[in-house]
Amino acid sequence: MSESKDCIVLLSGGLDSATTAAIAASEGYRIHALSFNYGQRNKWELDAAKNVAASLCAVEHKVIQFDLRAFGGSALTSDTPVPKNRSVEKMSAAIPVTYVPARNTIFLSFGLGWAEVIGTSDIFIGVNSIDYSGYPDCRPEFIEAFQHLANLATKSGVEKTSRFKIHTPLIKMTKREIILKGVSLGVDYSLTRSCYDPDDDGTSCGMCDSCLLRQRGFADAGLIDPIKYQIHN
Amino acid sequence: MSESKDCIVLLSGGLDSATTAAIAASEGYRIHALSFNYGQRNKWELDAAKNVAASLCAVEHKVIQFDLRAFGGSALTSDTPVPKNRSVEKMSAAIPVTYVPARNTIFLSFGLGWAEVIGTSDIFIGVNSIDYSGYPDCRPEFIEAFQHLANLATKSGVEKTSRFKIHTPLIKMTKREIILKGVSLGVDYSLTRSCYDPDDDGTSCGMCDSCLLRQRGFADAGLIDPIKYQIHN
Repeated sequence: MSESKDCIVLLSGGLDSATTAAIAASEGYRIHALSFNYGQRNKWELDAAKNVAASLCAVEHKVIQFDLRAFGGSALTSDTPVPKNRSVEKMSAAIPVTYVPARNTIFLSFGLGWAEVIGTSDIFIGVNSIDYSGYPDCRPEFIEAFQHLANLATKSGVEKTSRFKIHTPLIKMTKREIILKGVSLGVDYSLTRSCYDPDDDGTSCGMCDSCLLRQRGFADAGLIDPIKYQIHN
Repeated sequence: MSESKDCIVLLSGGLDSATTAAIAASEGYRIHALSFNYGQRNKWELDAAKNVAASLCAVEHKVIQFDLRAFGGSALTSDTPVPKNRSVEKMSAAIPVTYVPARNTIFLSFGLGWAEVIGTSDIFIGVNSIDYSGYPDCRPEFIEAFQHLANLATKSGVEKTSRFKIHTPLIKMTKREIILKGVSLGVDYSLTRSCYDPDDDGTSCGMCDSCLLRQRGFADAGLIDPIKYQIHN
């Protein structure tokens, strides 16, 4: 067996990042999980991230805290309502109000800093540009630009002791494919939370873009989604 | 007079960012100042940033808080001692231990997020690649890569409602030129603090790279540095 390598995995507590972490583990990486308490509506996702990190035997899990509500500008970090729909087909084609300005740039920047400190050049992020909310910072061209930046921004990049790589194993997969891959790797999706706007008990709404994409993914995979949703009449 | 435009200025409280803010103001920009409480040794620089922002009539000043001590990896965010020397000529030629992994990437990412929220495409940062500590994230190629990223990372970049520009008015100036420019614009350098490692009263050490570069800049400009330094025998 090859020697274990270290990597950073950005772990939100959702389905995609849990699957990404499982893929990293299956490739022999030791997982250093990184989550963010940034003022998001869904505080339960941090509990989910903690449980996912533990279930995948992450060697450590850090949660960085800052408040993007200082800026606002998104339904996830302000009092703007999260759009709700009855089906994926009714989702807006435009970039929706749940887009958080520069969020993945901020997240990857912290991931880059931690990667450099622990001496790894491998950063995993569960972005997906197929079954997604249309966010600009989930697209391949954004990831390529960040990877280029990473190697100019850092001491280890400049000194060529590292060649940073942003791993995006899900980027071209459908939600169905992601779920089937995760199931094949033993991901326990009951630990994950995807909802943008859960109720006070943390129960997923079932009508935001993220819930709709998740539910359709499980349906397409012929599997039962193991989490609870609010009941809408 | 042309209509006032908004801009973000990353304001550390040091000499360079104060001069950068003054240049932005002289170009007709309304200043939205952004500082970071990131676990740095020099907490006084945040007071300095507040005073500089007020002196330049910034329309607002936000301080984002997070803890880079969670990662460490720098003399500014850990217990590693800050190197001290007697002159600029004795400074290390290598990237020094005061380098903070991914710091400017993180700072610019937050600046980008705020810029998008307030609807401006202009971000000012006081990086300098002449009289500086050799940090990779102060070089023109890093700034160009971030600007490229910014336009891929954001809704307004993708929709072409903004074309983000990272302004670096100091990047090719010597410290002497920076100080003379600031003086010509009325910058009150007594409000600024540059030290990496001040004492418990906030008095600058006079021997870290940042103090040495500042002191030589004032000497080269034929001016008195208006701040206090510790006395070394």
